[in-house]
Amino acid sequence: MTGRLFGLGVGPGDPELLTLKALRLLREAAVVAYPAARGRKGRALTIVEEHLRADQERVPMVYPVTTEALPAPLDYETVMSAFYDESAAVLAHHLDAGRDVAVLCEGDPLFYGSFMYLHDRLAERYPTTVVPGVCSVVACASALAVPLVYRNQTLSVISGVLPEDALRARLAAADAAAVMKLGTQFPKVRRVIEDLGLTDRALYAERATMADQRLMPLRAVEGDSVPYFAMILIPGDRWTGV
Amino acid sequence: MTGRLFGLGVGPGDPELLTLKALRLLREAAVVAYPAARGRKGRALTIVEEHLRADQERVPMVYPVTTEALPAPLDYETVMSAFYDESAAVLAHHLDAGRDVAVLCEGDPLFYGSFMYLHDRLAERYPTTVVPGVCSVVACASALAVPLVYRNQTLSVISGVLPEDALRARLAAADAAAVMKLGTQFPKVRRVIEDLGLTDRALYAERATMADQRLMPLRAVEGDSVPYFAMILIPGDRWTGV
Repeated sequence: MTGRLFGLGVGPGDPELLTLKALRLLREAAVVAYPAARGRKGRALTIVEEHLRADQERVPMVYPVTTEALPAPLDYETVMSAFYDESAAVLAHHLDAGRDVAVLCEGDPLFYGSFMYLHDRLAERYPTTVVPGVCSVVACASALAVPLVYRNQTLSVISGVLPEDALRARLAAADAAAVMKLGTQFPKVRRVIEDLGLTDRALYAERATMADQRLMPLRAVEGDSVPYFAMILIPGDRWTGV
Repeated sequence: MTGRLFGLGVGPGDPELLTLKALRLLREAAVVAYPAARGRKGRALTIVEEHLRADQERVPMVYPVTTEALPAPLDYETVMSAFYDESAAVLAHHLDAGRDVAVLCEGDPLFYGSFMYLHDRLAERYPTTVVPGVCSVVACASALAVPLVYRNQTLSVISGVLPEDALRARLAAADAAAVMKLGTQFPKVRRVIEDLGLTDRALYAERATMADQRLMPLRAVEGDSVPYFAMILIPGDRWTGV
């Protein structure tokens, strides 16, 4: 009997935005794996830490790099592919030994999450349950207390890493938009939003739902760099008919 | 002292996908309001019913119509506007009396939810907390166990109620897509997906995360009508680089 693999969405940051189901399966798992930057505890672990027991084995999966721009001969895709292969092998070792493994995922596991690459490697080999979580887009809308998308409007969730022309085309076509993955992309994203005349509608959320969240109109953001886990929302026009 | 207004996302259907925060605030509220179709209990109430106490007042908000196509001289926007005005007045009465009011919202409150229209009417007058929930899009991806959107792909969340040409343009431009609000729109949506050559990538989810969920490739769906709360997902191309 192999163990079970759980991909647990733990939500955007507020520990109370954990679901009852994620909490139950977290408690059932002998092994708790989570992504972390080198030398850091990891936000996903921080979210659930109060619920962990001493007898649960903790397996940090430490990202080998923090940027896609690597010096030659290193190549981002090769480095990350090897990282996911190795992480999957570590989890497979526990699963083969019959231990249930919970992988903690900030936000939702299958929505731009690194769990997807483990899922692609393991889900066909082990019984797998994915528990959806509160994703960052709706968390930011709630933190900002702004209706995001009305009626038959289309919501576009866009990566700030896109080249400027692609970003411009996506934003120009959007009824309502969420721009994720800001970080060093922020000046470019802000410029495109300004060029399209959307600045007055744009809101900024950083560390939404956490104790130190920062929420403001995009116009009020100072400086040229923001955290990677910041987001700009451009809500749909309010449906005034109703 | 007025009461507090809570907009509580209760998730897509599985009662275990309630968050700890929604559960805590639900228990603090003297009044629990929820949308319902005439003669029905309402899915949002069903999701949380096991947690309610006998001393909590239940306020159903019964939709006056179930279709946008009304016989003249009735007009959908006028009818719904009056409904939200009346519902807001009922809630304001409780809030003015100092009672906390929890409004139950399937999925997430600010993501295509009817709570948005109450929020537009009440949030400036009463202390309001919105608790985000697991939205239907990520719930369907988890139920189908399919990574939804990789890396820098754009996710388009599209209403099936859009006219055929608009729907076609939205789907043609999407890297990954979720088409909501299917119901009687289903034949049109399926035709557009087929025309665009996307049928092989399209997955269908109905009552995702509930005990009687139905999950299948779009190709396997029979008949011309499906429930309103069904969804088609077209996941982004798997990022094989990693």
